[in-house]
Amino acid sequence: MPRAVAGPEIERLIQLLARVPGLGPRSARRAALHLIKKREQLMSPLASAFEEVLGKISTCRVCGNIDVRDPCSICVDETRDPTLLVVVADVSDLWALERAGAINARYHVLGGTLSPLDGIGPEDLNLKTLIERAHDGTVKEVLLALGATVDGQTTAHYVTEMLRDSGVAVTRLAHGVPVGGELDYLDEGTLAAAIKARTSL
Amino acid sequence: MPRAVAGPEIERLIQLLARVPGLGPRSARRAALHLIKKREQLMSPLASAFEEVLGKISTCRVCGNIDVRDPCSICVDETRDPTLLVVVADVSDLWALERAGAINARYHVLGGTLSPLDGIGPEDLNLKTLIERAHDGTVKEVLLALGATVDGQTTAHYVTEMLRDSGVAVTRLAHGVPVGGELDYLDEGTLAAAIKARTSL
Repeated sequence: MPRAVAGPEIERLIQLLARVPGLGPRSARRAALHLIKKREQLMSPLASAFEEVLGKISTCRVCGNIDVRDPCSICVDETRDPTLLVVVADVSDLWALERAGAINARYHVLGGTLSPLDGIGPEDLNLKTLIERAHDGTVKEVLLALGATVDGQTTAHYVTEMLRDSGVAVTRLAHGVPVGGELDYLDEGTLAAAIKARTSL
Repeated sequence: MPRAVAGPEIERLIQLLARVPGLGPRSARRAALHLIKKREQLMSPLASAFEEVLGKISTCRVCGNIDVRDPCSICVDETRDPTLLVVVADVSDLWALERAGAINARYHVLGGTLSPLDGIGPEDLNLKTLIERAHDGTVKEVLLALGATVDGQTTAHYVTEMLRDSGVAVTRLAHGVPVGGELDYLDEGTLAAAIKARTSL
């Protein structure tokens, strides 16, 4: 606990800012001072943005995404391919895929991955609605966009088994060399996967 | 401008967070998602802290410090030595000195340093009240806690000249080896200053 340098109201602001990911105790002070100096241009709009999000935000009952409307903007977007369902562990993964702009599909957010060590079992994930959506007659493919980690792969395996009798195709992201990646920095597992899945030119 | 990944309200929150020092476009997304997930524990208290600070914050009319009261907590603190006035360029410097806890004095915040290149002249700094305070009969010493930069030293020189006839002692921070600092990483100027100001053991 660093020494208080300002009145309790400003110290409280600094302490709260220090809990924002990306900011530490030192940068929280810098951020607080900047916010105070730019209170008209930044702190006040940020306070309004907080209030707006706080008042409206909810979890989409269809896909588990976070949005200010329910169903979320993606679920009601008619321009998206309704036959492809992309399964992600977290909203941050959904955002990453949307940022890439490589796919125009709907999503299903599990809310985590199976992790026996952390006590996260199937009942803790958003799986029930995934089964319902996979059986709705419209979905033809479920793409498991899960991390290439033990937990991610365990979850992928579980979901694949779960959807075995559903009649939908279950796919996963390709493993391989990251674009821009140098071979000599890559681990053996990735290199082996990239060799196995090599494509002809 | 990265691709929008969420509704306009959340995108606006991300854009505002990206303007907080310490956060960039990428970490702003992570911060926004964390704030949304921890909305009860973090976003809501932060919104209240913003509102509280926004409603009360002001610049101390005595010293130029930023606080939710005017005069500020430091100026009204009777336990502080009233004979010593520490002159700093910015509130962040005041906070740094308070964090160090090495001095129990009052402050005077100039609001910047003289910088002809940036068009900052004496009339842009909080100098008028400094002269008044130095002449109030109570202050015996004015410690110039300004950076060892060209602008900082120019300002120190200017303030020293300005207070020449005031009868108060004008001092500056010592130059020398930073505590914990390695000699071979230090610049020649600092080493020369440290040698010149050497003390006997």
